[in-house]
Amino acid sequence: MPDEQQTSPSPENGATGTTRQPFALARHLPCLEWGRSYNRSILTSDLMAAVIVTIMLIPQSLAYALLAGLPPVVGLYASILPLVAYAIFGTSRTLAVGPVAVVSLMTASAAGSVAAQGTPEYLEAAITLAALSGVMLAILGFLRLGFLANLLSHPVISGFITASGLLIATSQLKHIFGVKAQGDNWPDMLGGLASAIGGTNLATLIIGVATAAFLFWVRKGAKPLLMRFGMGPRSADLVAKAGPVLAVAAGIAAVLLLNLAESGVKIVGAIPQGLPPLALPAVDPDLLSKLWVPALLISIIGFVESVSVAQTLAAKRRQRITPDQELVGLGAANLASAFSGGYPVTGGFARSVVNFDAGAETPAAGAYTAVGIGLASLFLTPLLYSLPIATLAATIIVAVLSLVDLKMPGQLWRYSKADFSAHLATILVTLIAGVEIGVISGVGVGLLLYLWRASRPHAAIVGRVPETEHFRNVDRHKVLTLPHILSIRIDESLTYLNARWLEEYVLERVAERPELRHAILMCSAVNEIDASGLESLEAINHRLGDGKIALHLSEVKGPVMDRLKRTHFLEELNGRVFLSQDRAFSELANDDGQPPEPIDQWHARGLI
Amino acid sequence: MPDEQQTSPSPENGATGTTRQPFALARHLPCLEWGRSYNRSILTSDLMAAVIVTIMLIPQSLAYALLAGLPPVVGLYASILPLVAYAIFGTSRTLAVGPVAVVSLMTASAAGSVAAQGTPEYLEAAITLAALSGVMLAILGFLRLGFLANLLSHPVISGFITASGLLIATSQLKHIFGVKAQGDNWPDMLGGLASAIGGTNLATLIIGVATAAFLFWVRKGAKPLLMRFGMGPRSADLVAKAGPVLAVAAGIAAVLLLNLAESGVKIVGAIPQGLPPLALPAVDPDLLSKLWVPALLISIIGFVESVSVAQTLAAKRRQRITPDQELVGLGAANLASAFSGGYPVTGGFARSVVNFDAGAETPAAGAYTAVGIGLASLFLTPLLYSLPIATLAATIIVAVLSLVDLKMPGQLWRYSKADFSAHLATILVTLIAGVEIGVISGVGVGLLLYLWRASRPHAAIVGRVPETEHFRNVDRHKVLTLPHILSIRIDESLTYLNARWLEEYVLERVAERPELRHAILMCSAVNEIDASGLESLEAINHRLGDGKIALHLSEVKGPVMDRLKRTHFLEELNGRVFLSQDRAFSELANDDGQPPEPIDQWHARGLI
Repeated sequence: MPDEQQTSPSPENGATGTTRQPFALARHLPCLEWGRSYNRSILTSDLMAAVIVTIMLIPQSLAYALLAGLPPVVGLYASILPLVAYAIFGTSRTLAVGPVAVVSLMTASAAGSVAAQGTPEYLEAAITLAALSGVMLAILGFLRLGFLANLLSHPVISGFITASGLLIATSQLKHIFGVKAQGDNWPDMLGGLASAIGGTNLATLIIGVATAAFLFWVRKGAKPLLMRFGMGPRSADLVAKAGPVLAVAAGIAAVLLLNLAESGVKIVGAIPQGLPPLALPAVDPDLLSKLWVPALLISIIGFVESVSVAQTLAAKRRQRITPDQELVGLGAANLASAFSGGYPVTGGFARSVVNFDAGAETPAAGAYTAVGIGLASLFLTPLLYSLPIATLAATIIVAVLSLVDLKMPGQLWRYSKADFSAHLATILVTLIAGVEIGVISGVGVGLLLYLWRASRPHAAIVGRVPETEHFRNVDRHKVLTLPHILSIRIDESLTYLNARWLEEYVLERVAERPELRHAILMCSAVNEIDASGLESLEAINHRLGDGKIALHLSEVKGPVMDRLKRTHFLEELNGRVFLSQDRAFSELANDDGQPPEPIDQWHARGLI
Repeated sequence: MPDEQQTSPSPENGATGTTRQPFALARHLPCLEWGRSYNRSILTSDLMAAVIVTIMLIPQSLAYALLAGLPPVVGLYASILPLVAYAIFGTSRTLAVGPVAVVSLMTASAAGSVAAQGTPEYLEAAITLAALSGVMLAILGFLRLGFLANLLSHPVISGFITASGLLIATSQLKHIFGVKAQGDNWPDMLGGLASAIGGTNLATLIIGVATAAFLFWVRKGAKPLLMRFGMGPRSADLVAKAGPVLAVAAGIAAVLLLNLAESGVKIVGAIPQGLPPLALPAVDPDLLSKLWVPALLISIIGFVESVSVAQTLAAKRRQRITPDQELVGLGAANLASAFSGGYPVTGGFARSVVNFDAGAETPAAGAYTAVGIGLASLFLTPLLYSLPIATLAATIIVAVLSLVDLKMPGQLWRYSKADFSAHLATILVTLIAGVEIGVISGVGVGLLLYLWRASRPHAAIVGRVPETEHFRNVDRHKVLTLPHILSIRIDESLTYLNARWLEEYVLERVAERPELRHAILMCSAVNEIDASGLESLEAINHRLGDGKIALHLSEVKGPVMDRLKRTHFLEELNGRVFLSQDRAFSELANDDGQPPEPIDQWHARGLI
């Protein structure tokens, strides 16, 4: 039955966005929370998910290390300890952490700017990036600066991901053709490919194209086929996700059976067997000063990608994540990566969905996955000796092309030209000038457009809707106004960004109205007046006073009024503060400098 | 008599801030506008003002050139052609352009970072700064980017001016003591002074202290004294403003009569006689790359100072200025300065007020002032040979100490902690690290605090005020709510800065209410929904749908609705869009999953 309830003591008010946790320690160590209720049934689910994710992660880790320009084994190293660290500090139950495509590309771009691929300096740069990124993420988390990720608007992220997908796919074409080419932007990559394409290795090309074709088919065609053979939809889906593993096995078999390594097909070769070496990352001040900007961008992009995935999955099970603690979790994961010879990691979309679908219930599944990858590093690496690089490149291309969203530009164009501009700027600059400048430009264009709009807020001249107490825009409604009263409704908070605009707007409207005696600012939508806004109000009051016009305020909100009372503004105000716009209009209607008219005429004209 | 007026065709709507001018050419050449009605009476007023401003400007120009570390004659050069250029392109009738204290200090800091004072390279750097600043201001003006000046909030500007005043006064102490010291921040300046103070020149100190004491007295005491001798208040005020000229004359007389130059009192010495040399500024790419950041800061600080003065004076006579055209006017003035061997200029507060008080009616007064300064450069410079540097330093100290606002920090602390933080950060960083880093920090802190607040907008759970159609915050009013309906009023536009917050806020409130069936977002204060905001609404709709909760919108504004109709959101919305919150609440009140109850019970409970 419906029932009235009144002011409740629950914390539903205000604008806070943090969940309350029982203990401070549990807030910083979320594993204490879920660890308390860990039991055998959860263990079984987590172990099952870990096996599936491990199988998926092995080829992926090798491929993304290749994309980052690193030895394949570094991808495996980055998939062991970081998962354990995230399991301890992270708040998402199902996020799977490790190397991801976009961050790998950014690592390649940043490390490539200080050293050549294949050199020990290049590897050192990648490890330093992970360390820097770990420290930055943890600091941002402790300072609760997760809101900075808001600077990346959806159109900017989407443009960045599309452009990164195109860049990544293009960067892998050289492995498909079996040629050498360099570059971290489209002009360089395409130029390099065009001049090298003459040296295409046919066997490599066949492996690459066949693998890509198979993987594209497996995404759409495998699940229905398996279901026709009687498999349930969920298991069919999971088996289809193992397509890359099949491709890897087929690639190895082809190389071994046809002796393709002698035909010039590049293979992975010897991978050092064993667990990652634990070592403190080297601290080179020169390297730090060159890498801190890319490390910051990697941190923020990685955080945004990870937190979006984590939020989506958490919502499906009505769980919550804590973004500021997620920063700490990802920071710990990156530090763990740096200490074990890995490179920057974050929560990945594809693997997290697999983890979720496979039934992972706690972050412990991530720790079990780490054990799985560790075992693979110990025992499986000899099997991967003959894996063709082209097979890995094909898995990357198929994975990243699904990131390219070709419908987005059209949707944004129809919905918002400003968002479209930020989106397009991000795509174009990323493709032409590389990932770092691309994401900075996107944020810059977005912020500039935001500040431009914030400096021109919405306001309207309003008049009374006949026979009501409502006041509406004179341009949209038939309303009553009086020549000696100007009512301006301001639809934004008064802040320093629009303070100058406010002065100009009010004074211009006043200058157009020679008969004016009263200006009323209707403040129903003004949630805040900062010091600059107050300064502008004082200036307006002063200047209107010079012209014998009274400035009034109406419908000022409680918290705003409380702060105004702490200043001299209300004493200096040459008009009054009215509780409602209606009362202001009614009381001032008569004060037109003319002799008063009988009240029944007012009624007749609908003014009161 | 009051009269009803309805929707008028005047351009009172929307949020535009530009005045309409009859011709495009007149918009870019404001002199065409006032030139048409120029007559003998205006000529007389303008000439009178020009004479007074010229007398005031001569010592000021010399002093500010000294502050900028330049030969005194450069100050005169910067006070001739720039005034003519501004008279042609500027929109303020009374703004007086030329060297000002803060910009001179910034010039000293920027030029000092690339060359040593007294070298030709130092002068070249100052000229290059003027040229760069001129080009930047003009480009900002043509692109209508004047709104960028909004990034400097009032607390930041005020903090910057206070700190600059302290820095400038400190920088002149070495001239008062007659010692050598360097530095462009407090620690360096005070350290240099402390170690050099032993070499104080007594005669110099006496001149400096006496001049400063006289000038402090003249500000307060001269006007009443002159009025007691029968002078009118306005002329007494103007004569008192000529105090620095008297001080200059007395200083010269003292040096000549007492032969102080031989006692070690530093004097101005030979000033090249004649008009400024016209020359193209040298274009040195290396210098440009080092100076563009300080030039941009000088441009923006100069623009903000100038436009504030111009707006204040224009409002007093009910005139208008056009900020974007002001950028062009100041750009032209700085280019003119660069072409005639000057340094960066802008509209100054003190001189503009004198110009205004002396009766200037058009920018032509500025052009006549230029002629006055030109004549002074031709004929008066020999007279200034024996002027003590300490006298100029004293005029600077007295002028800038009036810029220091010691009451502001307290006021801001009481009114807004955020504004106080930006103010204090600007003061401290400017004093400790210099003007450039100071103003950048102020803008950075201000923007960061703004974005932080923008990412946590105001929202409230609302309920119905009994027996009305109004809905108010449940935490502030006794209102009716229902357990199966959650009404959230959002008090800001939905933009990318708060999109993530919106998701968290709504989903958390929903998670607290197990009986919930309907969530209503009351959008009366939502002026805009950008693409990221739309994305968040879609996500909320999707996630609520998973939990069998319908999402409804109420009181969506017309323009917002128009844009939503261009998307698929309204089709996918699993609830409805209501014209008013009242209707939403009334219609959904019955849909609680329980059998309907008689309508008269509803009346009795105040729900309809």
